[in-house]
Amino acid sequence: MKSREIHLLEYLKGDPKPENYKLAEADVPAPGEGEVTVKNHYISVDPYMRGRMSGIRTYVGPFELGKVMEGGAVGEVVESNYEGLKPGDFVNSMFGWREAYTAPGKALQKIDTSVLPPQSYLGIAGLTGLTAYVGIKRIIDLQEGETMWMSAGAGAVGSAGIQFAKAMGATVIATAGGPEKCDFVKSIGADAVVDYKAADNLTAAIQDAAPKGIDGYFENVGGTHFTAALNTLKPKGRIAACGMIQRYNDAQPATITDNLTFIVGKSLKIQGFIVTDHADMMDGFVRDLSAWMAAGKIKPAETVIEGIENAPDAFMGLFSGRNTGKMLVKI
Amino acid sequence: MKSREIHLLEYLKGDPKPENYKLAEADVPAPGEGEVTVKNHYISVDPYMRGRMSGIRTYVGPFELGKVMEGGAVGEVVESNYEGLKPGDFVNSMFGWREAYTAPGKALQKIDTSVLPPQSYLGIAGLTGLTAYVGIKRIIDLQEGETMWMSAGAGAVGSAGIQFAKAMGATVIATAGGPEKCDFVKSIGADAVVDYKAADNLTAAIQDAAPKGIDGYFENVGGTHFTAALNTLKPKGRIAACGMIQRYNDAQPATITDNLTFIVGKSLKIQGFIVTDHADMMDGFVRDLSAWMAAGKIKPAETVIEGIENAPDAFMGLFSGRNTGKMLVKI
Repeated sequence: MKSREIHLLEYLKGDPKPENYKLAEADVPAPGEGEVTVKNHYISVDPYMRGRMSGIRTYVGPFELGKVMEGGAVGEVVESNYEGLKPGDFVNSMFGWREAYTAPGKALQKIDTSVLPPQSYLGIAGLTGLTAYVGIKRIIDLQEGETMWMSAGAGAVGSAGIQFAKAMGATVIATAGGPEKCDFVKSIGADAVVDYKAADNLTAAIQDAAPKGIDGYFENVGGTHFTAALNTLKPKGRIAACGMIQRYNDAQPATITDNLTFIVGKSLKIQGFIVTDHADMMDGFVRDLSAWMAAGKIKPAETVIEGIENAPDAFMGLFSGRNTGKMLVKI
Repeated sequence: MKSREIHLLEYLKGDPKPENYKLAEADVPAPGEGEVTVKNHYISVDPYMRGRMSGIRTYVGPFELGKVMEGGAVGEVVESNYEGLKPGDFVNSMFGWREAYTAPGKALQKIDTSVLPPQSYLGIAGLTGLTAYVGIKRIIDLQEGETMWMSAGAGAVGSAGIQFAKAMGATVIATAGGPEKCDFVKSIGADAVVDYKAADNLTAAIQDAAPKGIDGYFENVGGTHFTAALNTLKPKGRIAACGMIQRYNDAQPATITDNLTFIVGKSLKIQGFIVTDHADMMDGFVRDLSAWMAAGKIKPAETVIEGIENAPDAFMGLFSGRNTGKMLVKI
């Protein structure tokens, strides 16, 4: 069997461009002892992957040049020499941007597709959902009756987090870019929405949306969003710093208004986190998510692009905001 | 009895100036039932007071214009109608910038001057010392063998914190301004000192002083110090944000290099705090401090200015760095 796959050709400075990527073809070997062959149905493209394309070690190492890029994918077992998996089973892997692969069965996670469609495990029921859950529940430690601001509310983590925070009994305000995304954010339950592209003064717009201030801020954007959060947080407010997508493609360091004294003056807590450091929360997450879904409180949201050859395009679309909800590539 | 005292005449924008303050004279009434009259020996001037001079409510309200400014002071009881205190006893109060006062005995804290001189209770054994202790022990949660960077190392909180962190078994690097202060910081035990006024590139200088990176940063300064801390902290590093003196006199917001993505990329934790929220740590602090002093590990450091009329000058001196250790006004 042949499989088409995406390679990274060079480490990036500034915006990702189509010529940074190459579509290649590889042979998929027949499975050896303990191995299975999987045909992917969906692959995940995520903002954090930009860091791995920079050639710099942060919390994960860089992608290897000229090899298939790693990342979350769900697929169907088509051939198996591993007793824990049989053809027709669905599995979650980190084997990335390719149509098919052969791998040891024990490196794969079998998923239950009886309640949720397989692609949910790349989104609201997977690391994306767990990321939102960890940020809200552990880092912000959001309490019933508090007010949270979710940035990038139409994104994968944002749209999950808005629904989780509502399910926890909080008031949620959200920011998103453009009227279409703002409508989407309202449709999933946000109490107030600010179109940051239309706001002259983001601080004033957030103050209008949450006149009593905010208790928690979920940071996906950075830059002027961060500044506005420090301006609008109440004393003892908390920021869960999950991502700063506005900054990832900067070739040169940007500058920002220095209102960091609010950290002192309001006794704020700001904490960066990476979901894999909080894997201990998975069981509680699955329990809560199941209960919220059973109660009809959660609506998975996805933007689907077709074809492995369009995966770089889907990835680049994350930075121009082409997705509402989780961005997926359907194989 | 008469008492001279300092009033604030107007709320400040920018640098404090002598004409913002007025020396006034008041009558000290004889003590009524349950009251005592106290002659102050030392009053404390502290950077946080700048916030109370701005007319803006942060964690404490602003000073009242045309009234004596509040603040820590130690003095001797000269007359008493309160059974818990007798003439000759020393007390700690928050009654501020004045030579003498009459107050209810139960509003005062009796201090033990048998081991430490009374002014220590305004410095290393008082809120100043507790501030350093809370930041290091609870916010940074400094572990034996880790490396901490103390900013404003020659200041009141800084010089206490350097000695506490060393006593806890950490490696301590410190920043201070000018060769004299750097010598002082070394004399109290810092393992390495950086003169930030002489450093072209503070990040590079910190990297030289701590080649393996820093685990904790104690923030008293802000601005370029904060930027350098984000650059040099190890993954999972912690910042205790106690003050940002570089910013307090800004009339207009400054700008700063935006390297905040390190908060995400290195899973950093940054927490602002105010010592009065952590009064529960007082007992543990007194226990640890007593043990460290008994072991000869702690050396109180003070800069003393004489005369209540010079209190505004002493306060302004905090911003030009005229103090090593705790700045005190002797009455």
